Amino acid sequence: MRSAFPKVLHRVGGRSLVGHALSAVKAAKFDAVSVVIGPNHENVGEEAKRFAPDAKTFVQRDRKGTAHAVMQADLTGNYDAIVVAFGDTPFVSAETLARMGDAVKGNVAVAALGFRAADPTGYGRFITRDGKLVAIREHKDASESERNITLCNAGIMALAGKHAAAILKKISNNNANGEFYLTDAVEIAAGMGLDCVALETSEDEVRGINTKAQLAEAEAVLQAKLRQRAMEQGVTLIAPETVFLSEDTKFGSDVVVEPYVVFAAGVVVEDGAVIHSFSHLDGAHVGKQASIGPYARLRPGTKLGAKVRIGNFVETKAANIEDGAKANHLSYIGDARVGENANVGAGTITCNYDGFGKAKTDIGAGAFIGSNSSLVAPVKIGDGAYIGSGSVITLDVPADALAVGRGRQSVKEGWAKRLRDARLALKK
Amino acid sequence: MRSAFPKVLHRVGGRSLVGHALSAVKAAKFDAVSVVIGPNHENVGEEAKRFAPDAKTFVQRDRKGTAHAVMQADLTGNYDAIVVAFGDTPFVSAETLARMGDAVKGNVAVAALGFRAADPTGYGRFITRDGKLVAIREHKDASESERNITLCNAGIMALAGKHAAAILKKISNNNANGEFYLTDAVEIAAGMGLDCVALETSEDEVRGINTKAQLAEAEAVLQAKLRQRAMEQGVTLIAPETVFLSEDTKFGSDVVVEPYVVFAAGVVVEDGAVIHSFSHLDGAHVGKQASIGPYARLRPGTKLGAKVRIGNFVETKAANIEDGAKANHLSYIGDARVGENANVGAGTITCNYDGFGKAKTDIGAGAFIGSNSSLVAPVKIGDGAYIGSGSVITLDVPADALAVGRGRQSVKEGWAKRLRDARLALKK
Amino acid sequence: MRSAFPKVLHRVGGRSLVGHALSAVKAAKFDAVSVVIGPNHENVGEEAKRFAPDAKTFVQRDRKGTAHAVMQADLTGNYDAIVVAFGDTPFVSAETLARMGDAVKGNVAVAALGFRAADPTGYGRFITRDGKLVAIREHKDASESERNITLCNAGIMALAGKHAAAILKKISNNNANGEFYLTDAVEIAAGMGLDCVALETSEDEVRGINTKAQLAEAEAVLQAKLRQRAMEQGVTLIAPETVFLSEDTKFGSDVVVEPYVVFAAGVVVEDGAVIHSFSHLDGAHVGKQASIGPYARLRPGTKLGAKVRIGNFVETKAANIEDGAKANHLSYIGDARVGENANVGAGTITCNYDGFGKAKTDIGAGAFIGSNSSLVAPVKIGDGAYIGSGSVITLDVPADALAVGRGRQSVKEGWAKRLRDARLALKK
Repeated sequence: MRSAFPKVLHRVGGRSLVGHALSAVKAAKFDAVSVVIGPNHENVGEEAKRFAPDAKTFVQRDRKGTAHAVMQADLTGNYDAIVVAFGDTPFVSAETLARMGDAVKGNVAVAALGFRAADPTGYGRFITRDGKLVAIREHKDASESERNITLCNAGIMALAGKHAAAILKKISNNNANGEFYLTDAVEIAAGMGLDCVALETSEDEVRGINTKAQLAEAEAVLQAKLRQRAMEQGVTLIAPETVFLSEDTKFGSDVVVEPYVVFAAGVVVEDGAVIHSFSHLDGAHVGKQASIGPYARLRPGTKLGAKVRIGNFVETKAANIEDGAKANHLSYIGDARVGENANVGAGTITCNYDGFGKAKTDIGAGAFIGSNSSLVAPVKIGDGAYIGSGSVITLDVPADALAVGRGRQSVKEGWAKRLRDARLALKK
Repeated sequence: MRSAFPKVLHRVGGRSLVGHALSAVKAAKFDAVSVVIGPNHENVGEEAKRFAPDAKTFVQRDRKGTAHAVMQADLTGNYDAIVVAFGDTPFVSAETLARMGDAVKGNVAVAALGFRAADPTGYGRFITRDGKLVAIREHKDASESERNITLCNAGIMALAGKHAAAILKKISNNNANGEFYLTDAVEIAAGMGLDCVALETSEDEVRGINTKAQLAEAEAVLQAKLRQRAMEQGVTLIAPETVFLSEDTKFGSDVVVEPYVVFAAGVVVEDGAVIHSFSHLDGAHVGKQASIGPYARLRPGTKLGAKVRIGNFVETKAANIEDGAKANHLSYIGDARVGENANVGAGTITCNYDGFGKAKTDIGAGAFIGSNSSLVAPVKIGDGAYIGSGSVITLDVPADALAVGRGRQSVKEGWAKRLRDARLALKK
Repeated sequence: MRSAFPKVLHRVGGRSLVGHALSAVKAAKFDAVSVVIGPNHENVGEEAKRFAPDAKTFVQRDRKGTAHAVMQADLTGNYDAIVVAFGDTPFVSAETLARMGDAVKGNVAVAALGFRAADPTGYGRFITRDGKLVAIREHKDASESERNITLCNAGIMALAGKHAAAILKKISNNNANGEFYLTDAVEIAAGMGLDCVALETSEDEVRGINTKAQLAEAEAVLQAKLRQRAMEQGVTLIAPETVFLSEDTKFGSDVVVEPYVVFAAGVVVEDGAVIHSFSHLDGAHVGKQASIGPYARLRPGTKLGAKVRIGNFVETKAANIEDGAKANHLSYIGDARVGENANVGAGTITCNYDGFGKAKTDIGAGAFIGSNSSLVAPVKIGDGAYIGSGSVITLDVPADALAVGRGRQSVKEGWAKRLRDARLALKK
């Protein structure tokens, strides 16, 4: 990946690769989850905890291969099956993982997941005999006829709990890299008279990620899926290829999304809302028939009521903007409540930070905030109050009151002309 | 469409599907236009009126099929031809519709429009005998050999006026859905000894829209056409796939459009103008050699003269900005005139709304509006006047005058250090 | 190109076509460079000077063909080889040009560059005999069997210096257009008993540009290459197809670029910086671990230190923003220094232009600029100073001082209610 950053912390759809993999593992509802991380990868452990808080974490101090990694985990729990997934294979589904676990039973000691590769070059091949999987052959070791096999190894494997220890112990590192490979489990189990089975899935599901280009391809695959899903639910994406979604983006009915909108995590858009072009939503709740953008940025903690309008070059953060309220132009509304039907004029800023901490602005229902006002928090504007344009408001304003805080206008006639004349004279 | 909204009101290129269809119908210059709408679709009727104000509207109270729909209209006008188009087939051209009408004459009583389907599955097939169209066979009723026919029914049909009533009356609803199908007209006319002809067009032209994904595909087809047309006219689209156009977008010569620009309806861009990235134009007229954006939003009623510059995070609405004037940064200019060569400083807001109504701002030629000013409308800034930065201007300013409306600066030495020290002490 | 603008001044990747061509010529390190421009194309000459300051410029007063153009240059310099490149073929590489020059030696008098055309229609074909290039046949003059040749003429040619004058003199304009064609050089040299060789390259490298659509395709080809290169260097492009790069964009390690970012010329992004969506960078230097955008516009002369944060709707220009400083919302920072860890509040404007000239704003380390402030340049805010929100600062502020410049807040109780009541009364 050409990165100092652990590979599995790179993100697709706003979520780390390991987060995707563990989400699937969790959804498969296994009895226990173990996470094996590389040396000096504490941040991977922390990320794993976010997605699988009850997982046990083990560190593989030396990178001695996949089987060696599996053996770092505590496998003594008398499990029916041990399913091995990988942090860099983010798209594997919970269903597939569950299917893997279910496949090892009776005399079946190993289940290996395969896919039909469009171009099998470089992948391990599934070698079968009499319909049974007997080996996984690395590309470089494969014979010409074996190379014609298109069912390739996805890496994901399930081992029967009762045989796992015996099989893993027999895996040797007698190979060019001196590593212990989990793929050897198939040949070993077959040699022990146990059965191995191949399960098959699509290449897309087991797409591994090793370069920045593959990371981008994975993002494209995920986005295509999310866009398709949104349209099937009835969202109007005018130009779906220009909309970026998160897995958890939620849409009501008859939502319209114009070109060039980015949905980061945690966004809910209710029925009939319209998201105009060039908007960016993150952790925001958009109410029914609200109108967002163009050029609106909704940051986490934004909660918009019905028919709210957030217009161009407006940023909201930790803001509860109630039904029918408007902030249409060039504003920052942070750590604030805006009451029903209040109107926040162009250029209004909630001054929520004083250099030390954040404070709240409370704007009452039906209040009118004149343009270019500065509301210095903590401050409370009463219901129906009126703030004159260009005011700096530092004190609470009672309901229905007018508050003005600005300089008085003075005029010097002819001054501008004299200034211009003087400037011109200087140039001569 | 998974929508509570009538299908034909969904939009492509900013125009409703029925609007597209009726635009073609109008351009074909038929003698009369009738619109048949579904029950409880008054909003479709209103939209139809916008595109065909002189059309008669009929309501099909029960949805009993396409022939039943046609029979709701008044067909008694002694017309040469009755051409039936559909509200969900937006791309059919006026030429094709006119060609359909012209095709029924002499012994030809029915003209049906067909297309060569890339995948004919599901479409009705044109059955011919001795070179004449004799039936339209639904896919499900077609024999194996009939299914090999690739000329499929687009739905659009013309009936000879003198035979229409007789043919329509013979269409029965003796079928699985109990509906009256217009496609039966072919077989009936043939049975009456009348001729039917098949006209052919491209699949793209008769693309119907039944899902949100098809709506997005139609938008993509239209956008590709509009981008191609703009480039052929000489517009430089640096990355055409990132520019969204409307059918009525008009460009002069040597216009440059950077990536990520959206043109809503009603935009005219004159010679030599440059539209920078992330700009959004709607109902705006851009003068010669003007420079727009990046991040400029021009709203309806914006009229920009020659060499005007509208810069980043600037919104204009109902604004007449005359030759050579500039508003380069973070401004809102609404309900305003900005005179020639005037300079509107960063952060300037025209405060055009007082909570009750809108009022106008008039900025004279050569005026200089200092940054972060608030111009409280109605207000008039004279030619050559100078507004000090950060001023709130509530009263008219004479030509060539200086106006300042802001607080006087006061300084408390050491205050910030004492504040920091106190805050730090609190933390201990 | 349907443009009043010379074709070779159109841009790809932000650089004119002739600029690309001359960059390759310069990188090939030839002994001398001559530029032949069309009549009334002084601006082409100026552009050429920017990329090849030491080139001699010649004007072809009459457009009499490619050989005639070459003969306008001074060819008397006793050169080993004369390599002819074209201003509308921007992607030819320095390596290819050098290879052309190296190919003419010994008895080889002409080297012509060819490519395998996906569709050869319209291109000149390379006619060979006994493995030697003997003629370039125009498509319209080619026989049926010659049209089956897929190696086509790219136009670029090298002539041996010692034979050039003799060959060029023999080229006649005895053809339909009355022009002197350089392609005739091959047949003439062969007739003189000299050898001609064909060199081959990819169609992409010699892509010529004659329409706005081809210009856009060239841009797409270039962008694809630049995106690929950035990812190979380790940059995380979440959606590479949405990022526009320049040839000189420089990235450190572990840089993340979100969807919809435009890099104009001269941008450097250091290690670990994140460029959020909808950002536009031009001539800017972004420090380590800086966070840019969304919706940040960095203009030329922007220099950002480590961990600087430039947030939404913020514009910077000629601004030196030091380590750890922040400007997160709705600001314009131009002609300014912002010291370490200073905080520039939302809506702050550096008022750098007074209608006549630009002046500087200097903000000290650790200063706190309250929201919606106007800093009227020239002005100096001392280290650790504190500016109250909504202030207009026209005078220098000492270190550690508080400065406030705003009106005092006044309140009229019940005024807003009375206003509403009066307005409602008017409506009755």
